[in-house]
Amino acid sequence: MKATNEVITMQKMWHKHLLRVHYKATDQMGVVHHANYISWFEMGRTEMMRHLGIAYRDMEALGLLLPVLDVKVKYHKPAHYDDCVAVYTTLTEFSPIRLTFNYEIRRVSEGECQHHENEQLTEPDGELLTSGQTVHMWLNNKWKPARLNKVAPEVYDELKKIVAIKK
Amino acid sequence: MKATNEVITMQKMWHKHLLRVHYKATDQMGVVHHANYISWFEMGRTEMMRHLGIAYRDMEALGLLLPVLDVKVKYHKPAHYDDCVAVYTTLTEFSPIRLTFNYEIRRVSEGECQHHENEQLTEPDGELLTSGQTVHMWLNNKWKPARLNKVAPEVYDELKKIVAIKK
Amino acid sequence: MKATNEVITMQKMWHKHLLRVHYKATDQMGVVHHANYISWFEMGRTEMMRHLGIAYRDMEALGLLLPVLDVKVKYHKPAHYDDCVAVYTTLTEFSPIRLTFNYEIRRVSEGECQHHENEQLTEPDGELLTSGQTVHMWLNNKWKPARLNKVAPEVYDELKKIVAIKK
Amino acid sequence: MKATNEVITMQKMWHKHLLRVHYKATDQMGVVHHANYISWFEMGRTEMMRHLGIAYRDMEALGLLLPVLDVKVKYHKPAHYDDCVAVYTTLTEFSPIRLTFNYEIRRVSEGECQHHENEQLTEPDGELLTSGQTVHMWLNNKWKPARLNKVAPEVYDELKKIVAIKK
Repeated sequence: MKATNEVITMQKMWHKHLLRVHYKATDQMGVVHHANYISWFEMGRTEMMRHLGIAYRDMEALGLLLPVLDVKVKYHKPAHYDDCVAVYTTLTEFSPIRLTFNYEIRRVSEGECQHHENEQLTEPDGELLTSGQTVHMWLNNKWKPARLNKVAPEVYDELKKIVAIKK
Repeated sequence: MKATNEVITMQKMWHKHLLRVHYKATDQMGVVHHANYISWFEMGRTEMMRHLGIAYRDMEALGLLLPVLDVKVKYHKPAHYDDCVAVYTTLTEFSPIRLTFNYEIRRVSEGECQHHENEQLTEPDGELLTSGQTVHMWLNNKWKPARLNKVAPEVYDELKKIVAIKK
Repeated sequence: MKATNEVITMQKMWHKHLLRVHYKATDQMGVVHHANYISWFEMGRTEMMRHLGIAYRDMEALGLLLPVLDVKVKYHKPAHYDDCVAVYTTLTEFSPIRLTFNYEIRRVSEGECQHHENEQLTEPDGELLTSGQTVHMWLNNKWKPARLNKVAPEVYDELKKIVAIKK
Repeated sequence: MKATNEVITMQKMWHKHLLRVHYKATDQMGVVHHANYISWFEMGRTEMMRHLGIAYRDMEALGLLLPVLDVKVKYHKPAHYDDCVAVYTTLTEFSPIRLTFNYEIRRVSEGECQHHENEQLTEPDGELLTSGQTVHMWLNNKWKPARLNKVAPEVYDELKKIVAIKK
């Protein structure tokens, strides 16, 4: 994404969202069932967008949907019941049509869940459990593709401003 | 259900719907997590209504919603991964405004899940695991109470015909 | 629980745990699917017990299980996506054999979820969405009934101290 | 899968498992929430292995675990409430250490869910909704890697026999 005169480069900032592993997420292997991470990714990107001032709820109110086209997950180590985990989310690709988010789920210290210090970091910390990616596409409420810069230019500009640095 | 000296009595018929316990439903106690039974009740009543010729999907298409007002569950014995269980459902109260369903979840023989013999029974069989009840209310799609005999008299009459015996 | 000379009376204190409604919890009626509240109750009692210094994880490490015998839920109003809700939990019955918790789920102001001010209250506040109850029984890890005062007297005493006032 | 000049080629057979989309799987976009497909893949491979005579439950009883290392999902079209869908599963890679399954979720005709004709097919039919892949690794019950041909040679041989054709 490096380039010569005018190019948009993503700030590689990770949004950190903390959560506590609850009982229902476990399975009889004694670990978190692998399907739950997909929902945790969703929580991560929701909280990141809220933090950026673009609540997903508000976009739905504008008639915009952002369904998932593609999910990839790699499972490194299992999470356990009652662990405090951080969902790290970063926006890695951005166009008027699509968004790509990357994620890391990491086990962090007990104290972090008690203080809920959500924040932006350049480097995720904690023990890596799962990493993944989701690709999304903007649709209107008739499920037709929508160009964000046409249908909600103010949201598009805001997103661009936040996620990009012109060089 | 109002009447002079004639009384409508419910046929106590149980609809039997078979399902296989899947891995995601288990928790680290090695049993089915208690929240899953609520969804199994939902599958039971959906399949019962479909069997009665009144698919819930069609009622939503008519602008009718049937949200849950009240749930009660009693847990007798745990279900385990890969068990074949039968969800027994019966309609126990019925008016133009409300419906009450009762449920029994029972472990049945392995063979039943391979043949999927859904049927109507006067007496549920198998090992009782969970019993419960849900109460529902008819709403229109603006979430206002709806009298079924006014908004969908044909559905109301059909339900009445099927579930009742005049004595 | 009233009596003459020496009697244990429950402190009616509600533990407040905040959570954000995530997308996966919604259904096509546009509200939170009713089964999710069961998991929210579980989060509520887990966080209450942690706050009381008796993490459920530690009790499992002692070989104790606390499965659910009975669940009741009343649905007053629906929760919606992205709502900030408080799960209020209180312990209403307590013996060496059983525990009963009561719950209220209430919609609270947006700001509360941003500050995560979990706390103990004598009176729950917010808009009442759901109320309910769960009954639990102590079992050992062979799934046989266990008397808490015999198998873990220190936990029993701690629980008793915290939840009771001698009169 | 090592051999001299003889080569083991996978039979590309798809196992077809039918399921009905239930209400809880939907979200407020009016479609099946994307996380549910991960569980459907799990049901698909469980039923395929049962059909092959190697129930996953029995492998856990032998002290073998088969956790997921990697999941990929592509979402083509949404599934809706009450749809009848087929989960097609095929084993695409096989060694003493790892298994890879591929999946297709397809919408099929209403009648198929009423007759539950699970079967083996060379070509999946129906309207393609989702495709995906999971990679798994054999572990012993201490979560250490296990070579299937060492720890359960009879299972390994059976799997090999079933999935392979010598040329």
